[in-house]
Amino acid sequence: MKLKKAVITAAGKGQEQIPLQTLINRQGEPCSALSVQLAELSGTGIEQVAIVISSEADESLYRSAAGAASVELEFIQQPADLIGFGHAILCARSFTKDEPFLLMVGDHIYVSDDETRTCAAQLVEVAQQKECTVSAVQPTHESQLAQFGTIGGQLVAGQNGLYEVTRVKEKPTPTYAEQELLVPGQRVAYYLCFFGMHVITPVVMDELARSAKASPGQPIGLSPALDTCIELGKYLAVQLEGRRFNLEQRYGLLKAQVATALHGPHRDELLTEIIDLLAPLRA
Amino acid sequence: MKLKKAVITAAGKGQEQIPLQTLINRQGEPCSALSVQLAELSGTGIEQVAIVISSEADESLYRSAAGAASVELEFIQQPADLIGFGHAILCARSFTKDEPFLLMVGDHIYVSDDETRTCAAQLVEVAQQKECTVSAVQPTHESQLAQFGTIGGQLVAGQNGLYEVTRVKEKPTPTYAEQELLVPGQRVAYYLCFFGMHVITPVVMDELARSAKASPGQPIGLSPALDTCIELGKYLAVQLEGRRFNLEQRYGLLKAQVATALHGPHRDELLTEIIDLLAPLRA
Repeated sequence: MKLKKAVITAAGKGQEQIPLQTLINRQGEPCSALSVQLAELSGTGIEQVAIVISSEADESLYRSAAGAASVELEFIQQPADLIGFGHAILCARSFTKDEPFLLMVGDHIYVSDDETRTCAAQLVEVAQQKECTVSAVQPTHESQLAQFGTIGGQLVAGQNGLYEVTRVKEKPTPTYAEQELLVPGQRVAYYLCFFGMHVITPVVMDELARSAKASPGQPIGLSPALDTCIELGKYLAVQLEGRRFNLEQRYGLLKAQVATALHGPHRDELLTEIIDLLAPLRA
Repeated sequence: MKLKKAVITAAGKGQEQIPLQTLINRQGEPCSALSVQLAELSGTGIEQVAIVISSEADESLYRSAAGAASVELEFIQQPADLIGFGHAILCARSFTKDEPFLLMVGDHIYVSDDETRTCAAQLVEVAQQKECTVSAVQPTHESQLAQFGTIGGQLVAGQNGLYEVTRVKEKPTPTYAEQELLVPGQRVAYYLCFFGMHVITPVVMDELARSAKASPGQPIGLSPALDTCIELGKYLAVQLEGRRFNLEQRYGLLKAQVATALHGPHRDELLTEIIDLLAPLRA
């Protein structure tokens, strides 16, 4: 299995400005959140990217925010009457056709702790080796479960950080999570939540299309589709060496910026300036 | 003297996105940099605001970024052939007419250390009392002189932080500053640099118009006009209780965000998250 395509969903309500926010990237240069996301693809071998945007969004703003991308870009507008994340992914079906693809959510920034490979490159490597649907996951405290899809599963023997998924639940309650989604080896009160990055196979797209047809006019989710697909073939989750930052969260952009800068050329400058800001504080 | 109007210049090249950047404001809510700037006007008595934008900018983006402002907003496009900061200010002359006005630069965020008054409110209070042109200034290390207009002057006797300006120089060299811009009472290697906020009187507008006429097609600056006006009437500078953050600087947005958050309701959350990010660092 060889991945050639990626889909970035950026059509969520109130999400329009996120790809246009400015960050200082790992090279120390100012750039848009969208171009940081596209840089995530380096080393994956992916050559074509579709960005799903809202039907009200101005494509030219995103195109200019993308900068001089080294991949072929295509913008797909999500029709206003097909709301939700599942529909956003389905909109890209004319682009993905019957190929597997990398899916990234447009409101996340990923910071790899592996100096040689981005988070996307780590995920794509696993998916190409295992030839199946793979979701990246991150150990996440139960206090944040209300924000994420969460998996239950078993460690694949002899494979550090790789899990066979047995259950997927979107935004579980802590009680549900404790009963159904405990994963051996996790710290107390931590669960494996979605990292905002998946390798999606055509079987998942078929399931999304089936749900859309079964519930016309309703939003459809990725998590239920993934949960259904567990029966239909191998589905793995992998814990990457890296962290995700949700730019929609309060201070999400700030945290993404600090984490990115700590790997960049201006690490000392940034640390000094943060301490400078904190130093005059009087308890 | 009573101020009723403010002008915000946001037409600089490459500056278009700055007012649209998202921050968490002092109340802990996400909002645009532009709306943070407009909130700066609270307590000043100012009722009308003109925002000078680039001739290529999309006014509707700024209007939606301004949100539900409590002031009357007007957008003025700076013609493409009239470049520079001085021309941007002059573009607003049809709006300011022969009234004094508050000038703020669109790429700055101001954080007041006075819990009851914004930086703008502090400045406007001084100008209304002294009835003259007043520039807000901030002690700034000589290493940053290349970014700012800088004043020389004398402390007004018995008035803490208030200076009679004797010289204005845009982006002076450290050598020039040491010879011409030393201000008694400043720490070694610190100068009084512009804070990005002025109360401008009609005499300064006249001088800007004169320079524009004398050098057609050339960019004109505010600092030389202010320097010329020293001869023409009282011109003061005031050091406010607060700090300015230039969003065009590397990590400027991040620093503005940290400084703002330290006054907000999520101070502890932010400090915890920053330490969390820094903690796993291996020297």
